[in-house]
Amino acid sequence: MAKDKKLVESITSRDVDFAQWYTDVVKKAELTGYTSVKGCMVFKPAGYAIWENIQTELDRRFKETGVQNVYLPMLIPESLLNIEKDHVEGFAPEAAWVTMGGNTPLQDRMCIRPTSETLFCDLYAKDIQSYRDLPKVYNQWCSVLRWEKTTRPFLRSREFLWQEGHTAHATAEEAEERTQQMLHVYADFVEDFLAIPVVRGRKTDKEKFAGAEATYTIEALMHDGQALQSGTSHNFGDGFAKAFGIQFTDRDNTLKYVHQTSWGMTTRLIGAIIMVHGDDDGLVLPPKVSPTQVVVIPIRQNAEGVLDSACSIADELKKAGIRVKVDDSDRSPGWKFADQEMRGFPLRIEIGPKDIEQGTCVLVRRDTREKITSSISEVAETAGKLLDEIQRDMFERAKAFRDEHTYEASDYDTFRNTIEEKPGFVKAYWCGDRACEDKIKDDTRATSRCIPMGDEGNLIPEGRTCVCCGRPAKKLVYWGRAY
Amino acid sequence: MAKDKKLVESITSRDVDFAQWYTDVVKKAELTGYTSVKGCMVFKPAGYAIWENIQTELDRRFKETGVQNVYLPMLIPESLLNIEKDHVEGFAPEAAWVTMGGNTPLQDRMCIRPTSETLFCDLYAKDIQSYRDLPKVYNQWCSVLRWEKTTRPFLRSREFLWQEGHTAHATAEEAEERTQQMLHVYADFVEDFLAIPVVRGRKTDKEKFAGAEATYTIEALMHDGQALQSGTSHNFGDGFAKAFGIQFTDRDNTLKYVHQTSWGMTTRLIGAIIMVHGDDDGLVLPPKVSPTQVVVIPIRQNAEGVLDSACSIADELKKAGIRVKVDDSDRSPGWKFADQEMRGFPLRIEIGPKDIEQGTCVLVRRDTREKITSSISEVAETAGKLLDEIQRDMFERAKAFRDEHTYEASDYDTFRNTIEEKPGFVKAYWCGDRACEDKIKDDTRATSRCIPMGDEGNLIPEGRTCVCCGRPAKKLVYWGRAY
Repeated sequence: MAKDKKLVESITSRDVDFAQWYTDVVKKAELTGYTSVKGCMVFKPAGYAIWENIQTELDRRFKETGVQNVYLPMLIPESLLNIEKDHVEGFAPEAAWVTMGGNTPLQDRMCIRPTSETLFCDLYAKDIQSYRDLPKVYNQWCSVLRWEKTTRPFLRSREFLWQEGHTAHATAEEAEERTQQMLHVYADFVEDFLAIPVVRGRKTDKEKFAGAEATYTIEALMHDGQALQSGTSHNFGDGFAKAFGIQFTDRDNTLKYVHQTSWGMTTRLIGAIIMVHGDDDGLVLPPKVSPTQVVVIPIRQNAEGVLDSACSIADELKKAGIRVKVDDSDRSPGWKFADQEMRGFPLRIEIGPKDIEQGTCVLVRRDTREKITSSISEVAETAGKLLDEIQRDMFERAKAFRDEHTYEASDYDTFRNTIEEKPGFVKAYWCGDRACEDKIKDDTRATSRCIPMGDEGNLIPEGRTCVCCGRPAKKLVYWGRAY
Repeated sequence: MAKDKKLVESITSRDVDFAQWYTDVVKKAELTGYTSVKGCMVFKPAGYAIWENIQTELDRRFKETGVQNVYLPMLIPESLLNIEKDHVEGFAPEAAWVTMGGNTPLQDRMCIRPTSETLFCDLYAKDIQSYRDLPKVYNQWCSVLRWEKTTRPFLRSREFLWQEGHTAHATAEEAEERTQQMLHVYADFVEDFLAIPVVRGRKTDKEKFAGAEATYTIEALMHDGQALQSGTSHNFGDGFAKAFGIQFTDRDNTLKYVHQTSWGMTTRLIGAIIMVHGDDDGLVLPPKVSPTQVVVIPIRQNAEGVLDSACSIADELKKAGIRVKVDDSDRSPGWKFADQEMRGFPLRIEIGPKDIEQGTCVLVRRDTREKITSSISEVAETAGKLLDEIQRDMFERAKAFRDEHTYEASDYDTFRNTIEEKPGFVKAYWCGDRACEDKIKDDTRATSRCIPMGDEGNLIPEGRTCVCCGRPAKKLVYWGRAY
């Protein structure tokens, strides 16, 4: 019983210590586990099931756009990694190196993939000869490894799970189109499925991916006002193609370099779900991504007919396509309520002898605690509608929060004060110079999150000036401290 | 066009050179690709899509038995690998060692997981305290690495994809039950879904897994008469639990060790599909696992209405839940037929101006080449029935082949001759001594594949003697040369 109590013990309040709150939730909702492997994490069933749902839905959306899945080796020979200069500079310092195979030292040591651009280039150089071989629109689901020094579950760990898409195209236009297309796939997925509003934008040169011509990003705002980069899509132009010699004979019979893109999303998203939606009682999962959508909790479950009713309600819900569980453990109802709340399952149904007498049951929303009484005969319909409502409301609340925490600053004092005192995004004009970006980071620990896509970021009204140096502005930038 | 021709060029005949036939099929059906990473393979879209279908179906079957998915680190510190003696002896010699993280040498070097028993034990030692924490029935889908010297696509490669289940139970009986249960899940899956008949059996002590008390296996027979171990399930007893200190307080308030199992299936299965079902025209995929089940091929596709008809047939099939593609490329119909045959898609539909006039189309089975004419209005129903028939027939043919190539031998001369001259399984009695197993392997290159489960392997009629030494027999064994 000591262990039971611990499980539902109140967790640190979000507003008292956000970092500790996060750690508590991850642990008490049993999303991750400890391991003797420093800097790595164990995805326990509750955590991994969230990733499985993300994967299934994202994969479906990828395939609708013509993506094909492949799997490439997890090891990259150093000689291969070294081919593209910017790329190797970006990744070699945090690579883990395999130097022995069995008892034999390797001549060309290999790193565990930190990302697989070089392997895809190696494959494409062999497989692409003609315009008929294009486009290649490949993706892989795998784990990657980066030797990070400080780590936090989901947000930063040495090994993490992700997908990485890698494409090759005949023209620069087509590559740019695919880069932006995938960013929108990401943004729509995060907004529709995870109920997290995002800013769609482009990274500044300072923040873009090692080896890319352009990096697009979606940026989300966490409850503590810090930003989380939640997915990126890169246009490589023909830089990698030139380094790796990926050429094709075009329709006009001339030899051309392909244009490439890559795009990725990771298990960080689980961190985003926790930090956007969670509250002081634990996790709050959007219905679409929640492994269990409804928990049926029998009240006085040993009374005649109660457990049967609970199970038949669960059966009705299952038939309606709802992911449901009955908690028939020997815990008290109060314990079960707290447990369901901590695990963040969107809806619970309470059913006891009195309810059965009246032919009703009580549904309780995780997000608002609102109680709804439904006739047992219509419970599946009621639950279905409520799940849709919860999904919608969670997005709207997160969006309202994000909007309330998005500020503007036109002079540097206001900018610095806002960053310091009002955690959130600050929208401010920028001259386009790296020096100002560096100064802002030094002064405030805020980084340029992105230049929003479309007019907002790029069509600058006459007379606007850089928030840092006062020279004419070229871009509007979302700034913020970030994970 | 040179490239097109090569694609449908005839491949080496199975009966002339089986190994070359296999290589040709893998290459021409574009299942795998080349890579600069020695001993590793690229799973191209056609190969990976088969694995995705295997994964989805197997995962569904696992979850029906209460399996939960997790993900553990890909790295194992050497100190952790060293804890269980038999296990480290089995795996350390073929491990790949990470000795540098970034620019820093590691104090405790780490190997890339060759299998994850030690990591699961590490987790279970922390997570299991009480009988209430049991059973743990975890599984992970991942890649593993073993530093093999000679490799072949799917059959043996340094890195391969698999699932590994790891369970912990309160009693020895429950562990044994789970071990056998998962073997039957494997066997049923391989027979139902991949149309490959298997022998369900137990490994001899010589052939069992490093650290296991008992290993169960399913053994399939390839077209060249060699066996392929297609899935294994291990009972560890409490050996790992004692080595790792995995104890729990039972209901009777005493401290006990858990009993553990593990079980795995790999991308080898794709090799089995190729070698059981393939023929001289290429791959032949069982409908249930085939990424594309039907290819609609328009004849004279530029004639009015032909492409429309092809697409509307495909739409009907899609509505019926059939995975279908229209080949509307600018190749000739003959090229498309050969291409569909080589890729092994189970059914093609030919539709041209004459067919449309008559309101019919022609369906051609990949496995038998049989042509069936159907009215266009009933094409989805006809195709659905044919796919079921093909699946059934492929299993029956493979079973008949296996049975025809399963021999018996009661004396050593017959045994040796059979192994040499009649590739297949040889059933023969065995005294139970390792010395006879070793001698048989030395003399014939055949190994004990398994002792069939149930009476056949274990209830030995009076007076039967070991095929090798002539002493009284204790078991019946399936012997054979194997991949």
